[in-house]
Amino acid sequence: MPFSVDRNRLMKELEDLGRFNRTPGEGVTRFSYSPEDRMAREYLLSIFASIGLKVSVDGAGNMRARLEGSDPDAPAVLSGSHIDTVLHGGCYDGAVGTLGAVEAVRSIVESALPHRHPIEIVVFSEEEGSNFGSTLSGSKALVGKYSLEDMENLKDPGGKSMAEMARDAGYAPETMADFLLRPGDIKAMVELHVEQSVVLESMGVPVGIVEAVAGIRAVEIRMKGTANHAGATPMTLRRDPLAAAAHIMTQIETLARGSGTGTTVATVGKIACFPNVSNIIPGEIRFSVEIRDVKPAGIKTVLDGISFIAPAIAASRNISLEIIPVSDSDPVLLDEGIASLSEECAAKRGIPCVRMNSGAVHDACMLAPIAATGMIFIPSRGGRSHVPEEYSDPDDIEKGVSLLAEVLYQLAG
Amino acid sequence: MPFSVDRNRLMKELEDLGRFNRTPGEGVTRFSYSPEDRMAREYLLSIFASIGLKVSVDGAGNMRARLEGSDPDAPAVLSGSHIDTVLHGGCYDGAVGTLGAVEAVRSIVESALPHRHPIEIVVFSEEEGSNFGSTLSGSKALVGKYSLEDMENLKDPGGKSMAEMARDAGYAPETMADFLLRPGDIKAMVELHVEQSVVLESMGVPVGIVEAVAGIRAVEIRMKGTANHAGATPMTLRRDPLAAAAHIMTQIETLARGSGTGTTVATVGKIACFPNVSNIIPGEIRFSVEIRDVKPAGIKTVLDGISFIAPAIAASRNISLEIIPVSDSDPVLLDEGIASLSEECAAKRGIPCVRMNSGAVHDACMLAPIAATGMIFIPSRGGRSHVPEEYSDPDDIEKGVSLLAEVLYQLAG
Repeated sequence: MPFSVDRNRLMKELEDLGRFNRTPGEGVTRFSYSPEDRMAREYLLSIFASIGLKVSVDGAGNMRARLEGSDPDAPAVLSGSHIDTVLHGGCYDGAVGTLGAVEAVRSIVESALPHRHPIEIVVFSEEEGSNFGSTLSGSKALVGKYSLEDMENLKDPGGKSMAEMARDAGYAPETMADFLLRPGDIKAMVELHVEQSVVLESMGVPVGIVEAVAGIRAVEIRMKGTANHAGATPMTLRRDPLAAAAHIMTQIETLARGSGTGTTVATVGKIACFPNVSNIIPGEIRFSVEIRDVKPAGIKTVLDGISFIAPAIAASRNISLEIIPVSDSDPVLLDEGIASLSEECAAKRGIPCVRMNSGAVHDACMLAPIAATGMIFIPSRGGRSHVPEEYSDPDDIEKGVSLLAEVLYQLAG
Repeated sequence: MPFSVDRNRLMKELEDLGRFNRTPGEGVTRFSYSPEDRMAREYLLSIFASIGLKVSVDGAGNMRARLEGSDPDAPAVLSGSHIDTVLHGGCYDGAVGTLGAVEAVRSIVESALPHRHPIEIVVFSEEEGSNFGSTLSGSKALVGKYSLEDMENLKDPGGKSMAEMARDAGYAPETMADFLLRPGDIKAMVELHVEQSVVLESMGVPVGIVEAVAGIRAVEIRMKGTANHAGATPMTLRRDPLAAAAHIMTQIETLARGSGTGTTVATVGKIACFPNVSNIIPGEIRFSVEIRDVKPAGIKTVLDGISFIAPAIAASRNISLEIIPVSDSDPVLLDEGIASLSEECAAKRGIPCVRMNSGAVHDACMLAPIAATGMIFIPSRGGRSHVPEEYSDPDDIEKGVSLLAEVLYQLAG
């Protein structure tokens, strides 16, 4: 084996990174542009410096640390992820892909083996959407999907914009255009990430090669009836939007399970009830519906189903209904060449792997339209993620990073 | 007609009372023991004085204003209601029954007609439970259902006890025993109240004679599954407590509609979802279930049904389930003699009326075990109550109060 990763060093850095945390003892909370985030970036910069990488930071705070190859004009091979977290999240989501790329590049540097293409570690800002409710904001800005105007319009709950926060953190959103990645600018992007689900764990396989990332259609359903006394209003005279919402939710689940693609998921994760008092029939209910599938047909089936059944359920109860679009992203097909190469590299290194899809969206999806893009997954214990209990086994992390190093080296060759 | 109510005077007093309000422009908010409540009481005391009534106030703040009859030792006939409101409530709930009793007694006084029994106007404290989350606290204290210890233990959200608040308002909770009403102490109690539902309005009848008040069984259902990524977790591997709760809610509604009594209602009015984020499968759901019926069999059918179906739904999804009792009160049968008398008096005065049940609980229920008790309902526009839009027609109010005056006079005769 020409180069090998240092598992202890990597695990120590993962642990170090987890200490830059606003909520010690209650999971990891590190929002982009926060003091914790800036400390974490300083820590990464010290590592980049120790490897001898050249660092650039764009107007959204995305950091790129570059290892030159033998041909300075050859397009770079990218790898990396994000270091921001959700509120009370874990130590692995994003961090494994970021520090995994660091360790992979460092192992290539230490091997002193030649490669033609530069290799860049990328650290994306604001992947989780914890500040602005919009995910992948850093990678969107990097590929020009978010303009400076978008960055001015994205506001946190306190009304502060992404552009303003980036400025406060020392970045210059106005210069974003100078950093944009366009088709052809880079050769490839490979992101290592924890799976955040139970597929790999249930199969007992340490590495997944991702073929496609699910598209998302999110809507908010708002239903209004009549708030009234819970004792004095006969069942036949009620206009209870929660009873109607419950009925619709059961149908949404049925639609997702029976969509026919086998890969559809639909989730009601958020619900608000007004006035939310035990002895008053609710007057209004709002709930989120998020539908994901790697196959557009699955999303369409559920959404069409909702648009048939929800109005009928609402009308049968004399409840008003609004279905408000929240977001809409298409499924992303990743690069078959990189998937095949990843399989070959895994075989070469003796790492069992399986092809799979991703239900979660990742920064890599934003790069897919401009360069050959791949993803490598490692198992999440119990499938848990975005929670303090998030955990991935060091053996699996080591295997994932070893494979990533091999793939990056082959791509840069 | 030997005596008649003065509608204009009554409507002006209703309007006056509505001005003692913490939330002008946003409905009426007048919690017991608040500054608004004390001002409202001063206002009532001035009216009592003008009629020449003798006032006593017990340790919970319940006020009684007494009109003597020809026999000072005869047990009194009571009528009255409460003047506290919910947050952002209306001008009619409680107020109509309180000022209606005032106007009824005043009309009897003005008629100068003789009656043997004393007639007392009662103003109950803390009916709504807005301070302590426990309804009917004043009437419970008056009949000895709440001890001084209970009054010390009932706390508002700031930790202040009912006893402490009563003391601050100038009452002496320690003296409660001196005021207790025991069986035989009073001859009868008749409470006038707005219906808070749509039954009278839908029938086009101005007055309801209440035969029974529904019992209540309230529980909280808590379900725990596994919070997880909404995109990455296949439908078959989820433990989603909101999907399970939705299924249970639809069954609760079916059980209430099909209980067989025709009078059962079941309400899920309050729901909490954790972590309540659109892209995370919920980890825990808690929701209230309140079942009411004038017939115990209806409550039992729904509760038994829930205790069969909810565990099965939870188990089929590998979700944990707890059904936590919150409160339990039996249906209250009101006095048939008073109902018959009320019908006769209505006929005599040419007021259309109908017999009905009450889904809501009222202070009168607390008096029913110790004296012949009746209730008179008048319509609520659109059935709305506990909201700023609460409204009853002055014509209906006048009819209700006229009937009340006649009934009180007959009972005191």
